[in-house]
Amino acid sequence: MIRYFTAGESHGQALVGIVEGIPAGLSISSEYINHQLWRRQQGYGRGGRMKIESDKVEILSGVRFGKTLGSPIALVVHNKDWHNWIEKMAVEGDGSKIEKISIPRPGHVDYIGSVKYGFDDIRNVIERASARETAMRVACCTIIRKFLEENGIFIGSHVLSIGSVIVKNRMNIDKLIKRFTKAACGAYKIAEEADKSQVRILDKAIGNKAIASIKRAKKLGDTLGGVFEVIVTGVPLGLGSYVHYDRKLDGQLTQAIMSIHAVKGVEIGEGFANAQKFGSQVHDAFGLKDGKIMRQSNGAGGLEGGVTNGEMIVLHGAMKPISTLANPLKSIDIKTKRVVDARYERSDVCAVPACSVIAEAVIAPVLANAFLEKFGGDSMREIKTRYKKK
Amino acid sequence: MIRYFTAGESHGQALVGIVEGIPAGLSISSEYINHQLWRRQQGYGRGGRMKIESDKVEILSGVRFGKTLGSPIALVVHNKDWHNWIEKMAVEGDGSKIEKISIPRPGHVDYIGSVKYGFDDIRNVIERASARETAMRVACCTIIRKFLEENGIFIGSHVLSIGSVIVKNRMNIDKLIKRFTKAACGAYKIAEEADKSQVRILDKAIGNKAIASIKRAKKLGDTLGGVFEVIVTGVPLGLGSYVHYDRKLDGQLTQAIMSIHAVKGVEIGEGFANAQKFGSQVHDAFGLKDGKIMRQSNGAGGLEGGVTNGEMIVLHGAMKPISTLANPLKSIDIKTKRVVDARYERSDVCAVPACSVIAEAVIAPVLANAFLEKFGGDSMREIKTRYKKK
Amino acid sequence: MIRYFTAGESHGQALVGIVEGIPAGLSISSEYINHQLWRRQQGYGRGGRMKIESDKVEILSGVRFGKTLGSPIALVVHNKDWHNWIEKMAVEGDGSKIEKISIPRPGHVDYIGSVKYGFDDIRNVIERASARETAMRVACCTIIRKFLEENGIFIGSHVLSIGSVIVKNRMNIDKLIKRFTKAACGAYKIAEEADKSQVRILDKAIGNKAIASIKRAKKLGDTLGGVFEVIVTGVPLGLGSYVHYDRKLDGQLTQAIMSIHAVKGVEIGEGFANAQKFGSQVHDAFGLKDGKIMRQSNGAGGLEGGVTNGEMIVLHGAMKPISTLANPLKSIDIKTKRVVDARYERSDVCAVPACSVIAEAVIAPVLANAFLEKFGGDSMREIKTRYKKK
Amino acid sequence: MIRYFTAGESHGQALVGIVEGIPAGLSISSEYINHQLWRRQQGYGRGGRMKIESDKVEILSGVRFGKTLGSPIALVVHNKDWHNWIEKMAVEGDGSKIEKISIPRPGHVDYIGSVKYGFDDIRNVIERASARETAMRVACCTIIRKFLEENGIFIGSHVLSIGSVIVKNRMNIDKLIKRFTKAACGAYKIAEEADKSQVRILDKAIGNKAIASIKRAKKLGDTLGGVFEVIVTGVPLGLGSYVHYDRKLDGQLTQAIMSIHAVKGVEIGEGFANAQKFGSQVHDAFGLKDGKIMRQSNGAGGLEGGVTNGEMIVLHGAMKPISTLANPLKSIDIKTKRVVDARYERSDVCAVPACSVIAEAVIAPVLANAFLEKFGGDSMREIKTRYKKK
Repeated sequence: MIRYFTAGESHGQALVGIVEGIPAGLSISSEYINHQLWRRQQGYGRGGRMKIESDKVEILSGVRFGKTLGSPIALVVHNKDWHNWIEKMAVEGDGSKIEKISIPRPGHVDYIGSVKYGFDDIRNVIERASARETAMRVACCTIIRKFLEENGIFIGSHVLSIGSVIVKNRMNIDKLIKRFTKAACGAYKIAEEADKSQVRILDKAIGNKAIASIKRAKKLGDTLGGVFEVIVTGVPLGLGSYVHYDRKLDGQLTQAIMSIHAVKGVEIGEGFANAQKFGSQVHDAFGLKDGKIMRQSNGAGGLEGGVTNGEMIVLHGAMKPISTLANPLKSIDIKTKRVVDARYERSDVCAVPACSVIAEAVIAPVLANAFLEKFGGDSMREIKTRYKKK
Repeated sequence: MIRYFTAGESHGQALVGIVEGIPAGLSISSEYINHQLWRRQQGYGRGGRMKIESDKVEILSGVRFGKTLGSPIALVVHNKDWHNWIEKMAVEGDGSKIEKISIPRPGHVDYIGSVKYGFDDIRNVIERASARETAMRVACCTIIRKFLEENGIFIGSHVLSIGSVIVKNRMNIDKLIKRFTKAACGAYKIAEEADKSQVRILDKAIGNKAIASIKRAKKLGDTLGGVFEVIVTGVPLGLGSYVHYDRKLDGQLTQAIMSIHAVKGVEIGEGFANAQKFGSQVHDAFGLKDGKIMRQSNGAGGLEGGVTNGEMIVLHGAMKPISTLANPLKSIDIKTKRVVDARYERSDVCAVPACSVIAEAVIAPVLANAFLEKFGGDSMREIKTRYKKK
Repeated sequence: MIRYFTAGESHGQALVGIVEGIPAGLSISSEYINHQLWRRQQGYGRGGRMKIESDKVEILSGVRFGKTLGSPIALVVHNKDWHNWIEKMAVEGDGSKIEKISIPRPGHVDYIGSVKYGFDDIRNVIERASARETAMRVACCTIIRKFLEENGIFIGSHVLSIGSVIVKNRMNIDKLIKRFTKAACGAYKIAEEADKSQVRILDKAIGNKAIASIKRAKKLGDTLGGVFEVIVTGVPLGLGSYVHYDRKLDGQLTQAIMSIHAVKGVEIGEGFANAQKFGSQVHDAFGLKDGKIMRQSNGAGGLEGGVTNGEMIVLHGAMKPISTLANPLKSIDIKTKRVVDARYERSDVCAVPACSVIAEAVIAPVLANAFLEKFGGDSMREIKTRYKKK
Repeated sequence: MIRYFTAGESHGQALVGIVEGIPAGLSISSEYINHQLWRRQQGYGRGGRMKIESDKVEILSGVRFGKTLGSPIALVVHNKDWHNWIEKMAVEGDGSKIEKISIPRPGHVDYIGSVKYGFDDIRNVIERASARETAMRVACCTIIRKFLEENGIFIGSHVLSIGSVIVKNRMNIDKLIKRFTKAACGAYKIAEEADKSQVRILDKAIGNKAIASIKRAKKLGDTLGGVFEVIVTGVPLGLGSYVHYDRKLDGQLTQAIMSIHAVKGVEIGEGFANAQKFGSQVHDAFGLKDGKIMRQSNGAGGLEGGVTNGEMIVLHGAMKPISTLANPLKSIDIKTKRVVDARYERSDVCAVPACSVIAEAVIAPVLANAFLEKFGGDSMREIKTRYKKK
């Protein structure tokens, strides 16, 4: 089983991750991981920090001569801005001269975290609660994703809406997706295509509207959320299981996505829209193609009974608007107990494109563990003798 | 930590469950559990089986003189129809005279399961994949729910839509909910109110339309899904944690609900709708009331940063239409490899009300474990000295 | 991954178990399990209860026509003595007429358990703390053991000492073991041979001395413990892993055995004796046999670096003397706080042979999970195409 | 729940660890951890490497101004010798010029690991399998240990035997232990006293004999193992549970110790010796002292039924002699399949004192998690209001 931990504060010295359970002999490089970190930093509407950073990962263990050793892989992303934070985020010392934050931001865990952990400085919360953590989550999961790719399983994503700008007519993008997904690596091609858009929207006209709407939000001191679609191609039939509730892959996949900062909704395929239809419109009749059993549609989004059905997996995530507003909502100073404007800390106006890239990453462990449960194995060679890509 | 396992085939001798980790001294009775089993069997649109069954649980261990012992609690629900299935579902014997099922139903895991586990009889899949399993899940979780109730945490639910019949204007039901949730046990009152409707819809007119729409679907040999809302009241601030991705309560709650049969979407509060709004419309400004910090709204659905914020938790689940259609879709006979009509096995037309009751149950372990992580304790007495209900 | 839960009080209605994760298509019967339950009940020095019981398991789910379904397997062992305990162990009622136990027995968890869980009746502790629970543990693990056997991995055991009667000279028994273990199922043959002895001692003369010593202990109102040896043959090289501390098989095997009632020591091979020797005397030089790499000895007990090395696994467990003494030690009445004699509850004088059989069982999940991690698979057929018995 | 991962190869750039689940507000410093790393490096009989290293830990996250934040704590120990290994252990490159190791050492996992993971270079195994990993395990566990100490629970250790030199008469050291353990921090005092000996033996004369015996072993090109005793004082009654097999603290504690490199035996108290005695000699009668219930002895080693009984916990670990011999055993070159002398890689002659220090560390997570299960809590302040040190 693959497991991973992340550590690190937003303005601390470094983000750190450990990935345990990767089979031996998988080719991986920091460059490969950095490309995903770069993708996570893109998108129209990001704040100033994205420019400072350009995250670079360092592999400290578990890889030798470009191949995994089977042993835990330690990753570090150093904070390039650390010199500005050495005092404020010092590990030692008493911090008596450092100003404390006492005004929580609605939508964030600022207030709750300080009550839960007994802090009088909200910085102690926001440093770990920050979505900066997802940089390391992406780094860790990229290794796991590479494992899937070598077994012919590819993950991609694109954005379906930003604020009220929505891809309502899917006809054009579905044509595109259909064309791409003729190849097993289809999801990857979708991702590449989406990478060309600043908002990861495959329909160019809608994309431009979305950019305009982010500009408007920024001018208003406001923020936007949106909905993204994650697609997995090349998935073998039979991953996950219906036999026990906690082994259902749909539950595991949606937990992974719901655990991303600001995600407040997840559906498999058109889950919510399908709830309004008749069964005959939703379920996927069987058919035969060249003597092989196939499906005539994919209303199930690739999952039936919590198990992959061999079709493309389709997941949607809904991201709430960014919680930090330049034109702030009301808050309470926890020290003075007075009503004040919520604090503003440098932030994005819209991060849906980034969220979509993060979602691609975080589902990789779920799929990889279901794959390993079925096929087992300690090394890429052993696994590949058992499982041949289609 | 509370853990539970369920076992049992749909037409097997019995469903069995074990719940491990319940503190000692909790009052519980089979009657109390049976009430929830009864609620799970209600709802307009259920098939014939619901009439046969009227599930009754038997407590085999872990409870003495009406109180839990701290030891694992074993539950059994005997199958009242077992005498009709003794031969078909025999544990011993070779089954050579029993007819095999070879036609999978779209939407079910029938085909996938038989490939995954190497069966030539689809009955081996459908017996465990059946939503009958949720009877035991509800039984197990009802004990855990009782634990929450004794600590002032209450769970309830109602239905928001069945097929295309939707509670579009929430004004009336929100008034109702607001009135009920003045009490800590508000969610329970909501549940009671919803129990009065055959479709668990709080708005009577919409409820009647929903019933009509189920009738129509039945006539068409078709099925319906819908959306339900689960509400938790009395939740203390600070359950769950933002510090590590797998400790986020939103992800855990989502997994629990998504693991229910036929659920294909989950959102926290109005997760998908909120993704279309501005941040200033979604986030919940702080205010003061009688000198205490409070919120002016609950756009967050009770969870910020994966942690409870002290407001009511609001979760929505989207259930797809039942997969078994009286007027069937096309399938393939896996034995003959010929295109045929999908098999019909006695089934419901709509089970959204039941699903909503099941969802109430399955989130209980998530909340109870987060509660125990914060407050610890081996017995109800020990826990209650630490945690006083508001 | 295979997981299992047990439930049930010693004098409750039934013991219940659920085993989750067994691949589909494994042949299993209640008869097969009952044989292991019978073995667990043997041994000179057992108390009266063993005669009442003769445990019989009932399979309630997960098996159809003699083969596992991949779904959870529920097991029940009904308490044949239940009619005598219906009132004392009633699930409902208030128990006001039932006498409470207030005198804890040294060596048992009686006192600790009642403080931990806040009981005023020690019966609430002893019912679950009783070694009766191991009957269900053996039942559950026997299914898992059958899985190992079908993959050519066999587990057996025999007893090395009872009280101060010790197999000091291993020459004769080692000859026997060597002869048996030429076959892959060697461990099973050792178990069969040991089954012939009332004390599971392979050396007949020592066995007779052990029986005499148990008789003497009984006359004294005292009890005895001892040491047993568990052997696993047919183990493939490479189960477990050195890459992370919690994946080391030696640690996992040890935990399994140490979690049996009354076990207070575990060693791998001659762990404690080897600590007194030079490295050159302990480690196992490599050699060649018919061109294949082999070992010249098995000082490692089959495990190096927490991984199986292809040699026979050898584990020793030390069981303390039974805690319930007919001639009791001093105790304190927790109600009156007065010094009294410890309570006597029907018990064995010596249960080392049973403990040895239980140890055979409880290590099965550890081995099976390591096996599944390496070879994966959902059905016996799938697994057997990958892994061929030597 | 506290969880921790370690990563890092013996001659890689760094060892890395992440500890997740530590409550907020715990005082910790790198200095405090370094002291334990220093203790781990002591002991007569260590190889050259101990002099190079003098491990220093760097805290990269989870601590601010000397206090934990509740967020994961990342630790790094840089390899001071890294400049000599940059090429041999490079993460990138193809390693084509780097010599491969093809001769496995008996007693190590060298051969098994290379077969399991499919390596043609044994270095890929030994780098992670090396006991160097325990430096990070100690670092991680020291933080957890600090958590215990602030709750009045102290861990210490001393050595009972090295090779055939054994503390046979415990009278003197037991007097010492009794004196120390009058204070709650008794175990810590024992550790301090043992720290004064190069072999951690409390009896000075035996200590000198042990040193002489290590010298002799070294001259012979041989190695030695031994037995150590770990003691925990200040443990509250009632940690762990008897209600389910995997919650028994004795099993968990012994797994932790058995997972240390080269440990091949673990007992609770005098587990193996007690197996030879009568029950009346082993079990601990109750008594009254100042009106409080107490024990008259500690044959149970502080654990009954897998639960702490309030007495001092006593654990023994048996370490096999170091596997790397200067005067090597026979091996096989896996490339040429020829019989050769096993490879010698710089190593210790005896590391029992270090092992004893490591054992102190690795049991801390087990105790801390049992403690948190009973008392819960997110911050040191919250926990201390619930649990007062005796």
